[in-house]
Amino acid sequence: MANRQVAFAEISPSEFFYRNRDLAGFSNPARALYSAIRELVENSLDACELFQILPEINVAIEEVERNIENPDPKPYVVTVRDNGPGVDPRHVPNAFGRVFFGSKFLLRQSRGMFGMGGTMAILYGQITTSKPVSIMTSFDGNSTIAFDLMIDIQSNRPIVLRKDSKPGDGSTGTTVKITLEGDYFRAAQKIQDYFKHCAMVTPYSKLTYVDPQGRVLVFERGTSAMPTAPEETLPHPYGIDVEAFRRLLKQSTDPSLLKFMYSNFHRVGPKIALRFLQFAGFDPNKSPAELTAEETVALVEAIHKFDEFLQPDASCLSPLGSEILDAGIRKELQPEFATTSIRPPSAYSGYPFIVEVGLAYGGRALSPGVKLFRFANRIPLLYDEASDVSWKVISEGIDRKRYHIPPDAPLGIITHVCSTKIPYKTVGKEYLADRPELERELKNAVRDVLRKLRGYLTKKGSMEMVKRKLNIYGKYLPLIAKFSTDLSKAKRPPRYGKLIAQRDSRREAQRRIEEYS
Amino acid sequence: MANRQVAFAEISPSEFFYRNRDLAGFSNPARALYSAIRELVENSLDACELFQILPEINVAIEEVERNIENPDPKPYVVTVRDNGPGVDPRHVPNAFGRVFFGSKFLLRQSRGMFGMGGTMAILYGQITTSKPVSIMTSFDGNSTIAFDLMIDIQSNRPIVLRKDSKPGDGSTGTTVKITLEGDYFRAAQKIQDYFKHCAMVTPYSKLTYVDPQGRVLVFERGTSAMPTAPEETLPHPYGIDVEAFRRLLKQSTDPSLLKFMYSNFHRVGPKIALRFLQFAGFDPNKSPAELTAEETVALVEAIHKFDEFLQPDASCLSPLGSEILDAGIRKELQPEFATTSIRPPSAYSGYPFIVEVGLAYGGRALSPGVKLFRFANRIPLLYDEASDVSWKVISEGIDRKRYHIPPDAPLGIITHVCSTKIPYKTVGKEYLADRPELERELKNAVRDVLRKLRGYLTKKGSMEMVKRKLNIYGKYLPLIAKFSTDLSKAKRPPRYGKLIAQRDSRREAQRRIEEYS
Repeated sequence: MANRQVAFAEISPSEFFYRNRDLAGFSNPARALYSAIRELVENSLDACELFQILPEINVAIEEVERNIENPDPKPYVVTVRDNGPGVDPRHVPNAFGRVFFGSKFLLRQSRGMFGMGGTMAILYGQITTSKPVSIMTSFDGNSTIAFDLMIDIQSNRPIVLRKDSKPGDGSTGTTVKITLEGDYFRAAQKIQDYFKHCAMVTPYSKLTYVDPQGRVLVFERGTSAMPTAPEETLPHPYGIDVEAFRRLLKQSTDPSLLKFMYSNFHRVGPKIALRFLQFAGFDPNKSPAELTAEETVALVEAIHKFDEFLQPDASCLSPLGSEILDAGIRKELQPEFATTSIRPPSAYSGYPFIVEVGLAYGGRALSPGVKLFRFANRIPLLYDEASDVSWKVISEGIDRKRYHIPPDAPLGIITHVCSTKIPYKTVGKEYLADRPELERELKNAVRDVLRKLRGYLTKKGSMEMVKRKLNIYGKYLPLIAKFSTDLSKAKRPPRYGKLIAQRDSRREAQRRIEEYS
Repeated sequence: MANRQVAFAEISPSEFFYRNRDLAGFSNPARALYSAIRELVENSLDACELFQILPEINVAIEEVERNIENPDPKPYVVTVRDNGPGVDPRHVPNAFGRVFFGSKFLLRQSRGMFGMGGTMAILYGQITTSKPVSIMTSFDGNSTIAFDLMIDIQSNRPIVLRKDSKPGDGSTGTTVKITLEGDYFRAAQKIQDYFKHCAMVTPYSKLTYVDPQGRVLVFERGTSAMPTAPEETLPHPYGIDVEAFRRLLKQSTDPSLLKFMYSNFHRVGPKIALRFLQFAGFDPNKSPAELTAEETVALVEAIHKFDEFLQPDASCLSPLGSEILDAGIRKELQPEFATTSIRPPSAYSGYPFIVEVGLAYGGRALSPGVKLFRFANRIPLLYDEASDVSWKVISEGIDRKRYHIPPDAPLGIITHVCSTKIPYKTVGKEYLADRPELERELKNAVRDVLRKLRGYLTKKGSMEMVKRKLNIYGKYLPLIAKFSTDLSKAKRPPRYGKLIAQRDSRREAQRRIEEYS
């Protein structure tokens, strides 16, 4: 029994993600550049929206050494500046320099889910260039604090290299500057797509992007109407497990199980709480503190079997709505026809969600074929399309014959899912799991927009028929009039002008087509 | 500026994966039951192979309450017993009850990559049933130690509820018993497939599986030849980043950069080290301790630009080899024809890997169409097939016409990738990223087996032609003989028997077909 020693070791969360950075979307210099930008932009958008500030975000990518000879991958500086609420300076080191430390661990709709994207970008910069991240933030408007930070990966702790303060100008906001090894050449297209797609679903934000060649891309604000700020909610009973239930019990000072049930869960009022406790066979007056471990398990099992809990309500969600979605589609895709379908709120495992689907048809921005634009909590999703539930739905659901869609017609399908918890299958937030409830809602919405498209195409078809008929009419009527005049040897042809004007609903037909689209 | 407080919090690694269990393959009761079994079985196989013990693994799933009325999901007890080396009792609580604590954080081929699968299974059991895990292990053969453990999720620490010791019987091994909420009804097929596929690539192990109805599935050992134990290797220069380089510098006591370079990296000898340092413009005699931060970054950049480092060698890898792969395919799929293709070692980002591909054609176990069997470091991968690089390769690469494959012919493609680091895209180990080097090797191997299949099919086709001709010959020759006899009024027909025997290579043709397959 030689060599019987197995080396056990503990690694820190930073170390784990350092070793497995593919998991978080930092698998290579191209992908890492893209991921760093999106994570920082999404943090900025989340912060602005939470405080109902109209977002104004500036992004710049610069080469560290301006040298065209030097091929990618090479070091770049990524700078993201926002006009958000700023970050309390006391929290800056941990919020940016520590994995699993963040403000996103709540039941609230936000782009960030895992509270680690920004830190991963900083970590990636550090391991590829050994440069600290620079953070400038103004939280109160009175002063701007600047930090230079690195991460002690082995212990998952921030190291503050510099901390300066200077007087502020009254405004708030945060600027993050990361030096990282990137492959701009390969990432350029995806980064541009990211901003375009972002603009499509956040028309209330102003985005400015300066690329390494100094070219400026500005997405102007199309509306100053912001969606309502997302709210935090109580957990829904169907989403609860024994561990979560036990934690609630521990915090609770409620005198009775009845009160405990109706004060700690989403959409559980005294009536339903009472019916549930009767169903589960528990005394409503029993003190929550007296529950044994076995009783806790039994109660949670009963929760999952009781079918009278109300579905989670979606007032905590902040969907785009038909108007914003439609405006975004028309602004970015300029289609011949656009329509949307907003599904009523639904839920999976106790998490409320809303599906919104848009459709764009024709126009010059789309190429022949079907293009899918995926969004989740207003994040564009650009990678691993084939694994996403939306792709599954549209690849199975678009029957061109059935919906009268001409072959090779340009078609854009836009899907947006918002939820307090998006069922991502990776930390890199690439694609959504095919939860049956989600699939069902997506299917219904896609069918709905396709039916509307069929309506438009049918109408357009019959309008064009009318137009064609009128064209012929207008062409031959003068000739017939002339022949008749010649034959009857009359001096003047009959007055057919009025007749054409009366029947010539060409303009009318056109108007109706336009009205419909 | 009301409500300006953002709540920041830190969560533990356990808490992170508790909240995001979808990431680790524990998204629902069906999937969790499957994942718990595979994680425990894979830990057992890894331990056995590391110590060159022929694996003998027993798995049982039992309902907690035998009650047919009670529908899934419901609590099950999963028990996995192995004859492995056992676990040092001092390490048991942390190894099983703490996320990010393990023995898998090395550069060595193993099924486990993230060191957290077993702990995730325990955590899932605890949050769904509130029951502790039971672990019995005999490490030295003298005593068997039994533990009951739970995890303090908020602090990521094990809680030992019970620890007993009893005399051992001289043998070693570990038994893990987890109570968890599962959906056997939905998981049954995947679990069975898992064992079948496992048996295909570990024919040297004996696997016994008892399902909840008490049915026993035994996969007998087909060979007692084990693959060599995987070895730990030094990091390859192409896989190094600034952080890793700095850590090596910190540990180093080497007097010169030259010695540092050739003693810390895989396949770097004094000659190449010298050439590299000259290329990078560093004095080979400089002390590693004197490198500044900037010099460190410059040196790492130079490493990635130097193209004379040797490719990692694969002696540390433990591929299946043609023989084991072929035996596994024939044993489990019983095809009409089977072949394999073993690629030479290759590397991505400094990690060596080997691709092995098998092909099975015909037989009764396969259905019409193409079925893909994916393996990585001898783990069957059963979920998210469409995202895997192997799927990409075979869906693009099988041109039935080109390879003379009849439509709807039953075809099985078996892909196995082994590496010191499998490029999984999820913690749940569902599928492999499409790294270009990996894709290239898979393509070459798939083409190779398809060419071999074409060879077989062409040969089989021409043999069948010969057979058909001989059938006709044998049928008409006696008639012709009879007619000729009648016409010539001879008394006896000519002796054509010998002629048929001579030419009748039907049996010969058959023999040659069989020989080939």
